Amino acid sequence: MQLLASYLAGTWSVGSGTRTPLVNPATEEVLAEVHGGGHDLAAAFQYARTAGAKELGALTFAQRGALLGSLAKAIHGAREELIAMAVANGGNTRGDAKFDIDGGAVTLSHYAELGTKLGSAPLLGDGEPIQVGRTARMGGQHVWARRRGVAVHINAFNFPAWGLCEKLACALLAGMPVISKPATATALVAHRLAQLFEPLLPAGALQVLVGPAGTLLDNLQSGDVVAFTGGSGTATMLRNKLPEPVRLNIEADSLNAAILAPDVELSSEAGALFLADIVRDMTQKTGQKCTAIRRVLVPEARFAEVCDAMKERLASLAVGDPSREDVRMGPVATAQQHADVKAGIARLAAATDSVHGGTGEVSPIGVPAGKGFFIGPVVRSTKDPLRCAPLNDHEVFGPVSTVGSYDGSAELAAAFVARGDGCLVSSAYSDDRDWVATFVGAAAPWAGRLYLGSSKMASQSPGPGTVLPSLLHGGPGRAGGGEELGGERGLHFYMQRCALEGDASVLKTLIG
Amino acid sequence: MQLLASYLAGTWSVGSGTRTPLVNPATEEVLAEVHGGGHDLAAAFQYARTAGAKELGALTFAQRGALLGSLAKAIHGAREELIAMAVANGGNTRGDAKFDIDGGAVTLSHYAELGTKLGSAPLLGDGEPIQVGRTARMGGQHVWARRRGVAVHINAFNFPAWGLCEKLACALLAGMPVISKPATATALVAHRLAQLFEPLLPAGALQVLVGPAGTLLDNLQSGDVVAFTGGSGTATMLRNKLPEPVRLNIEADSLNAAILAPDVELSSEAGALFLADIVRDMTQKTGQKCTAIRRVLVPEARFAEVCDAMKERLASLAVGDPSREDVRMGPVATAQQHADVKAGIARLAAATDSVHGGTGEVSPIGVPAGKGFFIGPVVRSTKDPLRCAPLNDHEVFGPVSTVGSYDGSAELAAAFVARGDGCLVSSAYSDDRDWVATFVGAAAPWAGRLYLGSSKMASQSPGPGTVLPSLLHGGPGRAGGGEELGGERGLHFYMQRCALEGDASVLKTLIG
Repeated sequence: MQLLASYLAGTWSVGSGTRTPLVNPATEEVLAEVHGGGHDLAAAFQYARTAGAKELGALTFAQRGALLGSLAKAIHGAREELIAMAVANGGNTRGDAKFDIDGGAVTLSHYAELGTKLGSAPLLGDGEPIQVGRTARMGGQHVWARRRGVAVHINAFNFPAWGLCEKLACALLAGMPVISKPATATALVAHRLAQLFEPLLPAGALQVLVGPAGTLLDNLQSGDVVAFTGGSGTATMLRNKLPEPVRLNIEADSLNAAILAPDVELSSEAGALFLADIVRDMTQKTGQKCTAIRRVLVPEARFAEVCDAMKERLASLAVGDPSREDVRMGPVATAQQHADVKAGIARLAAATDSVHGGTGEVSPIGVPAGKGFFIGPVVRSTKDPLRCAPLNDHEVFGPVSTVGSYDGSAELAAAFVARGDGCLVSSAYSDDRDWVATFVGAAAPWAGRLYLGSSKMASQSPGPGTVLPSLLHGGPGRAGGGEELGGERGLHFYMQRCALEGDASVLKTLIG
Repeated sequence: MQLLASYLAGTWSVGSGTRTPLVNPATEEVLAEVHGGGHDLAAAFQYARTAGAKELGALTFAQRGALLGSLAKAIHGAREELIAMAVANGGNTRGDAKFDIDGGAVTLSHYAELGTKLGSAPLLGDGEPIQVGRTARMGGQHVWARRRGVAVHINAFNFPAWGLCEKLACALLAGMPVISKPATATALVAHRLAQLFEPLLPAGALQVLVGPAGTLLDNLQSGDVVAFTGGSGTATMLRNKLPEPVRLNIEADSLNAAILAPDVELSSEAGALFLADIVRDMTQKTGQKCTAIRRVLVPEARFAEVCDAMKERLASLAVGDPSREDVRMGPVATAQQHADVKAGIARLAAATDSVHGGTGEVSPIGVPAGKGFFIGPVVRSTKDPLRCAPLNDHEVFGPVSTVGSYDGSAELAAAFVARGDGCLVSSAYSDDRDWVATFVGAAAPWAGRLYLGSSKMASQSPGPGTVLPSLLHGGPGRAGGGEELGGERGLHFYMQRCALEGDASVLKTLIG
C-alpha cells in the first residue's frame, strides 16, 4: 500500500499516527493511505520564512515566471500519469481529469507569461503618478510590494491539480513561499504534482502537507496569508480561528444561476449554447464545480421546452466507472459528499417537482454491486423560483439543477441572481443588448463573474463553468468575498499596496 | 442644555434613555447631552435600503459628485461655527480644528471632482479589454458595480469632521446610502455637519446616529459594508460580531515610524523637515492622530543632537485651554484617553529613558485648577529600539514619541518599520537614492503609505501625518488591513468587482 508523504522543510516525510485511506470513489478500492500527523509544521513555516522568502525575494518577476513555466512543462510531461490518478482517485472521467490537469497547466503558463511581461521591476506600479504638492515636484505613486510572510493554501477536493496550481502561480509570481494543503480524499494528484514540482523550485518555495491540517493555522503570524477554497462551514471556522493580522481569501459556496432571456429561441445558436452549458455543468466533474449552474431561469413560455430538452439530453447519459470509455459521468468524490448531495436533493424535493432523475437513484455501469458514491443527474423545477428557499439557500454540490420560470424581465433575472446572496458566476443568454445592459447593471454587484452568452460568441465560448486565469475568480457574500486570478489582480492578495509620497523624480526611479 | 438629536429615517429624533454628557476636555464643562438609545434602527436601515438606494442609484457619478461639492460648500459657509465647536468639544487649538474641518471639505471637493471626471458611466471599467477566446470577438472586461446595501460608518473621536466626510465622500460617490455613527464624546461637530448636510442630500442618502451604537450592527445583511476607524479592541469585537457576508474595512492602531538616514544633517533642509514633522505630529491634535509619529529612529552619531533639538522645540510649547490664542496644544479628548495615555507612558517609562517631559505632568494655562485632560509632550529614548517591546507593541495615542538609535543601514530602518507589525504610514528622510530604494523595497509591505522626506520636496511637503484624498489611507497588520481614499481606489470598498465575459462589442457598450 502506497503511503503518501508530505514535502516539508526540505524533506519528504510520511508522518505518523492513524492512517486515512484514499479510495477510488467508483469501486471503494483503497489506493493509498496517509498518516494523520506527525509533521513538524513549525519547522516548515520557519523554512518558508527563511529559505523560501530569501530565494524567492532574490528573483525577479521574470525569473519567477520562468519557474512557473517549468512547472507547466512538468505537468505536460506527466499528463497521462496524472489523468490516470485523477480517474482512479477523483471519480473523474478522462475529460474531467483533463479539465482539472490541463487547467492547472494553462494557469501556470498564463502567469509564466505575466512574469516575463513584468520583468525585473522591484515594485509593481499601481496607477499613474499623482501630483500632491503645489508643483509637479511633490508627488505620489501607489505601488504593490511583495509581502513578507508565508502563503498557506487550503484547497478543495474537486480540483486537486487546478486548485494547487492556480493559487501557487499567483503566490510564487508575487514572491511569497507557499505551504499547500490539498484535500486529503483526492490528494493523489496533488501529491504527484508536489513530487514533480519540488526539484524545479528553489528551497522553501513550495511545501505540501498531505493529510489533516493539524496545527497548520497555529503557526500563522503577521504578514502571512491564507487562501481557502471549500465549504462555508470550514470558512467560518477559519475566520474565527485566524490571528487578526493574517489576511484571508475565501472562495466558498455559490448558487450560480443561468438565465435565458425572452429573445432567445432554444433552436438558435444562443439557445443551443444555453442548453449545452447547463448540461455540461450538471455532468462535468459530476457537478462538483464551484462554478456549476445550480439554478436555471427561463421565460414561462419556454419552461416546458427547456425541461423537455434537458430530459432528452440527460436520458442517454451513461453513469458508472469513469475509467470506462463508454461512461460520461462518474461518482462524486467521497462518501460524505454522496450523503451531503442526497440530503440536498431531499431538501429540494420537498419544495420542487421532478423533471428528471427523481432523487438521484442510478445503476452505475461497470461497478461492483452496492459499491461507489454514485448519484444520477437530477433536474427539479419550480414555478416560484425566487421564493423557493431550498433552491436559493443551499448549494447542492453534485449533478443537480433546478429550473424555474419568470416573466422574462431583466430586472427579475437580476433579482434571481441576487437571491443567491453572492455567487462566483452567473450567466445570461441574450442577443438583446438593452436587456443585457439592464441585467448586468443590477446583477453585477452579486457576482464575481457574469457570463453573457450570445449568438456572436457561441462558437468559441468556454462556458460559464470554466475559470480562466485572465478573469477574476471569486464572488461576494455567500461565495466568500474573495478574489483570485484575473491576471495581475491575482498577485495583489500576496502583496501590500503602498502609497509612496515624495520627490516625484525619486518615485519614478523606484518603480523602474 | 442642548440635547443632540440623531437624523434617522428622514426625521430628527433625540431618542430616550440615560443621558451621556459631552464635555469641554479643557474645563470639563458640560456642553451638550445625548440619549443612550431609543431609536428605531431597523427603520433607518429600511429607509436606506429603499429611499436611499433608489435616490442614489438614479444619479450618475457626476450628479453624486455635485452633491459632494455642495457639502464642501456648506462646510465653508459654517467654518467659524464648526471651528468654535471643535475647540470647545475636541480640545482642539484653532489650528487643530482647521486641520480637521478643512480636511473634511478638501476631501469632499476631491471626490466631487472625481465624480465630474467619471461622468455618467453606468459601471466603472477596471483595466483593459481582454481576449479570452480564439478571436478578439470573445472577450472579458472587469468592471466595478455599485453595491446594493447600506454603508455603516463608525468613526473615531479625534476627527469628527474629516472622519465623517472622508468615508461619506467615497460611499456616496460610489452610490451607497450611509448610516454614520460619530464617536459620542466629540459628536458636536459631526452633529452640526449632519444638520448642514441633511437638506442638501436626497432622502436616505445620509443618516447620522449620535450616541451609542445600540443595535446598529444587528441590522446588517448581505450587501452591506462597515467601515470602522478606532482602537483594535473595538475592531476585534466588530470582526467577531459581523455577519459573514458583510464587508468590513478597519483602520486601527498604528505605530508609525520616522527615520533619519545617515546622509542627512539636522541643519539641512531635509533635517529641518524631519524635526518639524516629528514635533508637529507630537503636538498637533495633542498627538491624537492615527498617522502621528510614535517611533523615531536616528543614526547613533545624531542621537544626542536630535534629542537636544526636540527638547529645545518642545520646551517653549504652551499647553492649556485651546481657546486661548497663546496656547499651542490642548488636552486629550476624554478622561478615558487621558488614563490610557498615562498608562501607555508608564509602560514606556519602565523600558526607556526620559528626554523631555517626564511622564507628561503639566500645568495647563488658563484652566481651573485640577480640571481638564491635559498631558504634556513626552519624549523618551532607547538604545535598543528594535527590542523595546512597549515601544513597538503599544500605541500611545497622545503627545508621546520615543527616539531610538541605529547603525544607519536602510535594512535596519525597514526592519524597524516592520517591527510595528503593520502601520498606516512611516517616513524616511534622505537624499541618498540608493538608501531610499533599499528602504522602500523592504518597508513597503509593512505600510499603507511611505513618506519620503528630502531636500527637493521639503518646501512643499504636507508632512507624513496629513492624509490626502488622492493617496491611500490604511495599513496592513496591526493597522487593520484596510484601504480608504486613494482617489478612485476609495470607491472600490463600496463596489463589487465583476468580470464580464462575452461578445467583445457588447462588453464595450456596457462600460460606455
